[in-house]
Amino acid sequence: MSEATVKIVEVGPRDGLQNEQAVTLAAKIQLVDDLSAAGLGYIETGSFVSPKWVPQMADSADVFAAIERRSGVTYAALTPNLKGFEAARAAGADEVAIFGAASEGFSQKNINCSIAESLARFEPVIEAAQQANIRVRGYVSCVLGCPYDGEIAPAQVAWVAEQLFAMGCYEVSLGDTIGVGTPLKAQRMLAAVAEKVPMPHLALHFHNTYGQALANIASCLPLGVRTIDSAVAGLGGCPYAKGASGNLATEDVVYMLHGMGYDTGIDLAALIGAGQRICQSLGQQPRSNVALAELAKQTSN
Amino acid sequence: MSEATVKIVEVGPRDGLQNEQAVTLAAKIQLVDDLSAAGLGYIETGSFVSPKWVPQMADSADVFAAIERRSGVTYAALTPNLKGFEAARAAGADEVAIFGAASEGFSQKNINCSIAESLARFEPVIEAAQQANIRVRGYVSCVLGCPYDGEIAPAQVAWVAEQLFAMGCYEVSLGDTIGVGTPLKAQRMLAAVAEKVPMPHLALHFHNTYGQALANIASCLPLGVRTIDSAVAGLGGCPYAKGASGNLATEDVVYMLHGMGYDTGIDLAALIGAGQRICQSLGQQPRSNVALAELAKQTSN
Repeated sequence: MSEATVKIVEVGPRDGLQNEQAVTLAAKIQLVDDLSAAGLGYIETGSFVSPKWVPQMADSADVFAAIERRSGVTYAALTPNLKGFEAARAAGADEVAIFGAASEGFSQKNINCSIAESLARFEPVIEAAQQANIRVRGYVSCVLGCPYDGEIAPAQVAWVAEQLFAMGCYEVSLGDTIGVGTPLKAQRMLAAVAEKVPMPHLALHFHNTYGQALANIASCLPLGVRTIDSAVAGLGGCPYAKGASGNLATEDVVYMLHGMGYDTGIDLAALIGAGQRICQSLGQQPRSNVALAELAKQTSN
Repeated sequence: MSEATVKIVEVGPRDGLQNEQAVTLAAKIQLVDDLSAAGLGYIETGSFVSPKWVPQMADSADVFAAIERRSGVTYAALTPNLKGFEAARAAGADEVAIFGAASEGFSQKNINCSIAESLARFEPVIEAAQQANIRVRGYVSCVLGCPYDGEIAPAQVAWVAEQLFAMGCYEVSLGDTIGVGTPLKAQRMLAAVAEKVPMPHLALHFHNTYGQALANIASCLPLGVRTIDSAVAGLGGCPYAKGASGNLATEDVVYMLHGMGYDTGIDLAALIGAGQRICQSLGQQPRSNVALAELAKQTSN
């Protein structure tokens, strides 16, 4: 991967759809296949958690079974525990991900245990994955602020990221879960984490709730980060402020990266089409400025 | 003005409302007064152009007559010609602005003459303003792309900005009229212009049509620019792609600047309130992520 390549981790089918109203199995499969056809090389395809907690993801095994596997594409799944990991493995997930927090308040409210306890719970998952030769990605949420604890110290984020990396996560994704970060804070946080985890093993997962995600990413790219998480059409919204934006739209970050001369391997027009199709299933407009501008231009002409 | 101060030029009442459906005179007056109460120090209040072309601005003199003038606030008007200038002066505008383009195609289609001809037409306006001791601001549109000519060379933008500055404009506002710019292109353009016009005399007027405005501004701040144009609630949309975003929301840029430690003198909560009130008049949602997130948070709580 050259310096001028940025890897997009597409989280729409999982992090996006788990926060939308129920979507048909057929629409989920179509979305994943549309995304791989548009050139996405990494697609978080589903989640193996209790359907009691996340009913939207109850059919993830069926999604994995029915998608058209393109060579070179990684189809990943979220697996919070050993049971989830085994289900993901049985379903044929290429990689799995675990989900920790940089804030004690969020860890308690979201996964019902302390940060230290959550790390201990991930150990058997990582061990089992290593034995099965399956790579594990680690998420850290609330890296730029927490709905319960407020501001989070960069050193705290760095500590959690370092633990996940040391435990065997090949990549740590830094999540601005509530989208409150701004450029200089994002830079400071990333710089602090990069002292503990080498930059090629870090990803940015910035939400656009306050419209800051692209500005934060643009400010962090000069520091050397080259992996960005986003969701086509901004799927998912903000679970902490219903009606607000959540995930950054993949269309918008790809437009920016291409304009800056980075290669992503993604066909932007096909990506816009993928977002349009799933949004039609959901009966909503894409939460992507690029998609809306392109669709409006077509209507205006 | 310290290094850590950014001046916001609020263009919502003019550049915003001229692209919205008709708004009542009372709502316009309320908007300007709400904005000055929120701490905006520069408000583009109206436009003195032929009501044949811009019927939404036909009552600008009435707006100027009825607003509550706060000391320290500049109330400005757009004046394309001498007749407009005299009307703005009679109405009590503190400053006036003229409007040129960096692209020949846009100049021809938008103001029906070449760039050189437009500059010649501005001469008597600037002369009259100087005699009346009224400052003139110059806009340059299409600095990062044109709907007719495509990409615009930074040297071309620099040349037009240099002419306006030499003719007597105290500030030149660089407009990404169709919002197509990305961070590195924005930096290159600004750096080229700053070789001809000193940075303290430059402003950024970046539209958010493709979601890039904040990223572009964040990337240009390190170059030293300290004046930003924006419109509360993203008023106006995009005149070249109906249904898409246009003006950057003042709420979103103020949120970013405050988060970066810049002082703007603006009370963000009051600003969100100002945007909410005018959007209620228009029967639409604010086009501001910050406003939507804050309003959604209030609803969710």
